[in-house]
Amino acid sequence: MNYKMIRYTLGVILLFEAGFFLVPMITAVCYSEWRAFIATAAVALVALGVALPFVCRKPKNTRLFAKDGFVIVALSWIMLSAVGALPFVFSGAIPNYIDAFFETVSGFTTTGSSIIPSVEDIPKSMLMWRSFTNWVGGMGVLVFVMAVLPLSGARNMHIMRAESPGPDVSKLVPRVKRTAIILYLIYIALTVITFLFLLADPGSSVFEDINTALATAGTGGFGFKNDSMYSFSSYFQVVVTIAMLFFSINFNSYYLILRKKFKEAFNTEVLVFLGIVLAAITIITIDVMQNDSLVSPTGEPIETTFFGALKHVAFTVSTIISTSGFSTVDFQHWSALSHLVLILLMFIGACAGSTAGGFKVSRVVILFKAMIREFGNLIHPNRVKKITIDDKPLEDETVRSVLTYLATYVFIFFGSLLLLSIDQAIFNPAENTFLTNFSAIACTFNNIGPGLEFVGPTQNFADFSVFGKLILSFNMLAGRLELFPLLILFTPSTWKK
Amino acid sequence: MNYKMIRYTLGVILLFEAGFFLVPMITAVCYSEWRAFIATAAVALVALGVALPFVCRKPKNTRLFAKDGFVIVALSWIMLSAVGALPFVFSGAIPNYIDAFFETVSGFTTTGSSIIPSVEDIPKSMLMWRSFTNWVGGMGVLVFVMAVLPLSGARNMHIMRAESPGPDVSKLVPRVKRTAIILYLIYIALTVITFLFLLADPGSSVFEDINTALATAGTGGFGFKNDSMYSFSSYFQVVVTIAMLFFSINFNSYYLILRKKFKEAFNTEVLVFLGIVLAAITIITIDVMQNDSLVSPTGEPIETTFFGALKHVAFTVSTIISTSGFSTVDFQHWSALSHLVLILLMFIGACAGSTAGGFKVSRVVILFKAMIREFGNLIHPNRVKKITIDDKPLEDETVRSVLTYLATYVFIFFGSLLLLSIDQAIFNPAENTFLTNFSAIACTFNNIGPGLEFVGPTQNFADFSVFGKLILSFNMLAGRLELFPLLILFTPSTWKK
Repeated sequence: MNYKMIRYTLGVILLFEAGFFLVPMITAVCYSEWRAFIATAAVALVALGVALPFVCRKPKNTRLFAKDGFVIVALSWIMLSAVGALPFVFSGAIPNYIDAFFETVSGFTTTGSSIIPSVEDIPKSMLMWRSFTNWVGGMGVLVFVMAVLPLSGARNMHIMRAESPGPDVSKLVPRVKRTAIILYLIYIALTVITFLFLLADPGSSVFEDINTALATAGTGGFGFKNDSMYSFSSYFQVVVTIAMLFFSINFNSYYLILRKKFKEAFNTEVLVFLGIVLAAITIITIDVMQNDSLVSPTGEPIETTFFGALKHVAFTVSTIISTSGFSTVDFQHWSALSHLVLILLMFIGACAGSTAGGFKVSRVVILFKAMIREFGNLIHPNRVKKITIDDKPLEDETVRSVLTYLATYVFIFFGSLLLLSIDQAIFNPAENTFLTNFSAIACTFNNIGPGLEFVGPTQNFADFSVFGKLILSFNMLAGRLELFPLLILFTPSTWKK
Repeated sequence: MNYKMIRYTLGVILLFEAGFFLVPMITAVCYSEWRAFIATAAVALVALGVALPFVCRKPKNTRLFAKDGFVIVALSWIMLSAVGALPFVFSGAIPNYIDAFFETVSGFTTTGSSIIPSVEDIPKSMLMWRSFTNWVGGMGVLVFVMAVLPLSGARNMHIMRAESPGPDVSKLVPRVKRTAIILYLIYIALTVITFLFLLADPGSSVFEDINTALATAGTGGFGFKNDSMYSFSSYFQVVVTIAMLFFSINFNSYYLILRKKFKEAFNTEVLVFLGIVLAAITIITIDVMQNDSLVSPTGEPIETTFFGALKHVAFTVSTIISTSGFSTVDFQHWSALSHLVLILLMFIGACAGSTAGGFKVSRVVILFKAMIREFGNLIHPNRVKKITIDDKPLEDETVRSVLTYLATYVFIFFGSLLLLSIDQAIFNPAENTFLTNFSAIACTFNNIGPGLEFVGPTQNFADFSVFGKLILSFNMLAGRLELFPLLILFTPSTWKK
């Protein structure tokens, strides 16, 4: 293990985080929130002071192995959250450090689960910091650093692989650094376009437009109103609906579209994703129309017109499959069929290489093809075929890795659900329902945000114990970093010489 | 495909089923149930008449390929259920054929889900037939036929592999026929021992003892009282608890114990299974004691003493992990933690090569080891290790097959849940809750029996639509035959020349 290089990289990341703090600091100045300004500035200065000595001397040996890549990514994200939580504490927005840590992990992992009972009561600069963590976490902090700094040449592919969502990372151009720059430029461009469309709505303030654009781009879903997106105009809601879908698609596709390779851009994953979205909207709209079950997040019934239902259903489908977690309606009142469809969307998630969480459509496609291949193997045991996607054969190793990903996913899911249920049975028997715990794990692990029942869209995560919040934080990080980086931290053989 | 051999084998199976009908016929004579007797005898005679022409001429070419084995097993089980349902209809016990088919599938697959509102009202001979289907289905009909008839030599390994539960079939002795005989002798011996222990209870009738022994041995769980096992003595309940655990263990282990190979008998799977049982009993007993939540199936609270709680919890854990489905308490009243543990047990199921359903402990062990190996692969990409169980390396093909099994399991589970939910939303919106549908699928697919809410231990499956009952029947067969035989029936390339 290249400890010197790990220390150096962590130092660089801390330096960048000190820079990120400028965003809430500027906001604090705009709104004269001096306590928040001083708190954030102090944290930024200390971070700068701690980071500089580490960054001064670049190690001679910059070689990174796969293991180093995983460890760097896992430690970076934990450090980012641990430090990023401090302004919340010192500004008084979230006095308890564990709560602030939970909130920051939720931000960087683009989950959007919150422990804040009333978001309208905390300083605007801190709301901006929350939305900004959504945005930074969406594309990945280390990818950002790689885009800006010349780290260590081709070897930092390991870092990109560990941080990027999906079963496989394809370099758009031969050099990793240029790939990272292209991805970030597309990300910034799409975020700005979203912002401009939101700006065109006279009903929302510029502050609201910036926040929404950042949280939407990261598919994080941190809101700044207690009723999430309910009170915004239909235009605003429709823009957010479309934007969430755009940020759910593999960013490689946008690059391919820019290069006019349309056939490659609309690959199997994108088409399956769009098919799932359409099917879900159709089923739920029919269901909601039949049951007349539109209810606002504040509990008032909404008149069910066809276009109204379509708008709210499209928003909900988009927010769930993109794992954002905004809401315009309280979908708790929907039928069992609609709930099932939403739960399936929660687990499937969106495309690999997007800012969304979940299992990823491409993995579902690979699993499906692996199942079909198994039929073939059983019928003709001597004829073993390769799985192909978009006419390209997949490596056996990729298929095995996706199959094992499912097994690992199931183990972590039920393992943490068991721990959380034991914790709840001891500390919080009153709110300890199966559905609460199940959906708390499902929504943090898939980086969605709000769940059902006691963690539903109109509730929050404040009532979990300290241990419960740490389990859920672990789940959010494991979900965002796709299991292995975080698990490798806890594997003894990682630390053997 | 060897169509002649498939026809011949199906004829043999039908002949055997005609023989099985002797059991309810004798019972009908004992209890003077003449309508049931005539109905069953008529069905048996017709079956005999249809089967004989097929059996007379044994095909010259007895070669069976893997594909033929799967097709034979799938068609046999569907035929057994389709024919086995007729006595229920003609005796008037279950007038509707689809209901009778559901009940018979539930019997042969050892599920134990019922559509009969009050089992105490149907003829005793029909109750005996239900329990007997549990018993026959437990060890497998084709294994039974192979034990008795000289089918086609070594090639019928394909049939055994397709019908036996678990990731891999090990022949105990070189010849398949002898292996089948040994397994059936152990099965019969254990059933008789269970019966004798039950007979020692003066509180139960011989009829009840036989029925319970048959349904327990098959881990089917068809009861014959409306309150399942609640009203029996503690002695009776404890015997059933222990027996269910015995029938959950790989029958190979009993053969190894008889041959004094104790170390091999207590292999990893058996030890993990026993560990899970102990852990589950401990957690739930503590939970039930704290919440004082013992309630009888008829709704009366039961006084919570330590031994009382232990008895009921051990019974419930044993009935769920063995996928039997009897009950002595209504576990709907237990806490979220206990529910979670029970749900985990439902999915894990018991040992491969037993009469129990579910995912099987050995598969869980293999998945866990595959996950650990993946960590190793990520840390040291160039060092690929084989997975070993009990110091024996597993074939890569077996591991891949188990991993794909999980993916297939997830696809079928959620696919049929979606179909059932759509069906329920159309035909039965009142009882269409997420938990009802989810647990109906979970309990049929894992061959357990009763589920939660509207299909809970004190309810039944009568209210599903015809299409819903067919989906659930498909699930029971898919679960018992471990997915692939049934799916291969629906794969077009199976039927290509």
